[in-house]
Amino acid sequence: MTSRPIADRRPVVVQKYGGSSLSTAQQIQNIAERISQRKADGVDIVVVVSAMGDSTDELIALSDAVTNGQTPDAREMDTLLSTGELVSSTLMAMALKATGYDAISLSGVQAGIKTDAVHGSARIADINTDRLRLELDRGRIVIVAGFQGLAESGDITTLGRGGSDTTAVALAVATEAERCEIYTDVDGIYTTDPRLTNQARKLAEIGFQEMLEMAVLGAKMNPRSIELGAVYDMPVYVASSFSNEPGTLIHGGEHTMEVRKAVTGIAVDRNVGKITVRGVIDRPGVAAGLLQPLADAGISVDVIVQNASSDGTTDFTFTVAEANVNQAADVLGADSKVQHTEIVEGSNLAKVSIVGTGMENAPGYAAKMFSTLAGIGANIDMITTSEIRITTIISKDQVQKAVQALHDAFELEKSE
Amino acid sequence: MTSRPIADRRPVVVQKYGGSSLSTAQQIQNIAERISQRKADGVDIVVVVSAMGDSTDELIALSDAVTNGQTPDAREMDTLLSTGELVSSTLMAMALKATGYDAISLSGVQAGIKTDAVHGSARIADINTDRLRLELDRGRIVIVAGFQGLAESGDITTLGRGGSDTTAVALAVATEAERCEIYTDVDGIYTTDPRLTNQARKLAEIGFQEMLEMAVLGAKMNPRSIELGAVYDMPVYVASSFSNEPGTLIHGGEHTMEVRKAVTGIAVDRNVGKITVRGVIDRPGVAAGLLQPLADAGISVDVIVQNASSDGTTDFTFTVAEANVNQAADVLGADSKVQHTEIVEGSNLAKVSIVGTGMENAPGYAAKMFSTLAGIGANIDMITTSEIRITTIISKDQVQKAVQALHDAFELEKSE
Repeated sequence: MTSRPIADRRPVVVQKYGGSSLSTAQQIQNIAERISQRKADGVDIVVVVSAMGDSTDELIALSDAVTNGQTPDAREMDTLLSTGELVSSTLMAMALKATGYDAISLSGVQAGIKTDAVHGSARIADINTDRLRLELDRGRIVIVAGFQGLAESGDITTLGRGGSDTTAVALAVATEAERCEIYTDVDGIYTTDPRLTNQARKLAEIGFQEMLEMAVLGAKMNPRSIELGAVYDMPVYVASSFSNEPGTLIHGGEHTMEVRKAVTGIAVDRNVGKITVRGVIDRPGVAAGLLQPLADAGISVDVIVQNASSDGTTDFTFTVAEANVNQAADVLGADSKVQHTEIVEGSNLAKVSIVGTGMENAPGYAAKMFSTLAGIGANIDMITTSEIRITTIISKDQVQKAVQALHDAFELEKSE
Repeated sequence: MTSRPIADRRPVVVQKYGGSSLSTAQQIQNIAERISQRKADGVDIVVVVSAMGDSTDELIALSDAVTNGQTPDAREMDTLLSTGELVSSTLMAMALKATGYDAISLSGVQAGIKTDAVHGSARIADINTDRLRLELDRGRIVIVAGFQGLAESGDITTLGRGGSDTTAVALAVATEAERCEIYTDVDGIYTTDPRLTNQARKLAEIGFQEMLEMAVLGAKMNPRSIELGAVYDMPVYVASSFSNEPGTLIHGGEHTMEVRKAVTGIAVDRNVGKITVRGVIDRPGVAAGLLQPLADAGISVDVIVQNASSDGTTDFTFTVAEANVNQAADVLGADSKVQHTEIVEGSNLAKVSIVGTGMENAPGYAAKMFSTLAGIGANIDMITTSEIRITTIISKDQVQKAVQALHDAFELEKSE
């Protein structure tokens, strides 16, 4: 059978369904029904599925048990975990066929997904869509096992955290799809965490860069798939797999012609600890000298602030995950070759950011943010900014009041 | 890395472990320990594993659930079921590595097992052992996922019932192994079913042809793997995976130089129904005319006996599985184009056979069998023979007495 002439092809839509939407046979049948409804729109559909419910955790528990808790071999782990998506993809194809739709499952290998050989967090190198294209041209709904690919060695790899989202966006790019639809157990991207204020509003759309800054919020989306969408300008639609409520479209800002709000949302991270190294001689190489021992110890550093020096010394402050504060201080005390007078630990902190491409080159937003926080009596511990984000570190117990006040001040409850 | 020169290669042993030996993480660790002990013998080891415990049944239940009990698509079913062996093979490799042995799992695809495209009961067409050989030459224990292969289309296939045994014997042939060791939940091949007489004795060895006649007894071995061993003269050793008791070696009779007993064992099948078609005109084409409608209805016929004709008509009798007796009679009544006077059904029957290559061209065994059965008052309903087997159909309620009497008469309790 030869492929359909390109001019006759139907538009392609790639959908992705997460494991929490596929926990039981009944849920798989429900999702099959949703897929068949979308097929009725006259599009070619590629569906990427995660492993059913907790099945990945069950496989990890088995690997722990057979190795008495030692770290299992990474190559074996990848083949083991890849079976979870093989199970869900074949069951989904069966469910669709049983209701009269022509469907076929493809493993990562069969879908032509080629990766590097970094087991556990492989990167997609290339996708050969020949088989996938052939099956679409036969009129079939193609179900692809997410999260997995094939290294040149012939070994199975997995893509790591958020891997099935990455599979979906990459397949959308490779098939020149209209868009990639991510269906999950949240129903879209919100202006801020709805648990912090009932004013939080679901966004109809958001730009890729804003989404990357907001990524910790709401939708459990890995930044990697957003980055991939941004690089290839592939629109990503995030919505609930349990309802038909409209979700959020993440897309390239240049497509948005209407006037945008300055601030799109408020991102919050309540897992923040702080280290301040005082009395550091201010000369080249100091930052690297402080941070290298932390990198060697596997500690990720987030916000970094270095004040301008006075009398030739400066204070160097950075944040780490709260659980890492003590270890970070120990590492610096023991390993740092950078002369300093004191190391001060801080905890019970949170990071609150306002995010929005409308802030670029527009003055006044920082001042408004800081005066709003002052208005609720919140002391700002650290400040850092990017072109589309202003981040403050404040006390954790003031987060909720801060988010509510900022949400009001920037009128985020009003739609664009 | 290049392969080791062939002259330097260690002998290869292929082992196979069934699912009931791999039900839990602890059992997998126990089997890993057994494998590592065998490795210490200085051989290269290829291990074929079945899916863990009931995991295949669980996958089948899921497929039933998502299709509401319709027959699931055979291609999807094969990929789904193949995951069971991927799980057990990767866990086994992890368990071995965790105890300091170098091991690697290979899927059916990676082990080079190429099959035809008959999903659900594929036949092995060819095995490319390059990857497997390379891993053995690296000193690794190679764990192969049983029961599966790859069709030319790039689709996963499964080998059907007894598939992992077939994988093991085929890999033993392809790697020119010393022998194939099948470890299971029975500890060998017995002279007869030990539940019928406590005189039943485990055989140290048995010929391939005898084993094929005995296949329904004791070891849950599929005739297909025995046939493969017979064709390629690959010795197959069957033993318990739970103990170190010696098992049974199945091998080509021509290697056995010592004098063999005439009768090796007694095979029993208690699932026998009978159909007699009376008053059939005795002319060419009658047997085919009677049996074709049954084949079309999917009913397997076992023993067939046609008496010599008298006055131009004959009686034609055959056995089927007991559950199929009524259906078989209905089919013959409705569809048969063969003229007859009467169709008589019989049930509550059993098939008792004595098996042994020593009976070939040696008189007296049939007479001894029939007189033994007469001695316990058993009426023989049908008789059929092959070169190494004499089969009788008797009443099911006389089976136990018959087996005990025959076991005594042929002195099967005494070792060779």
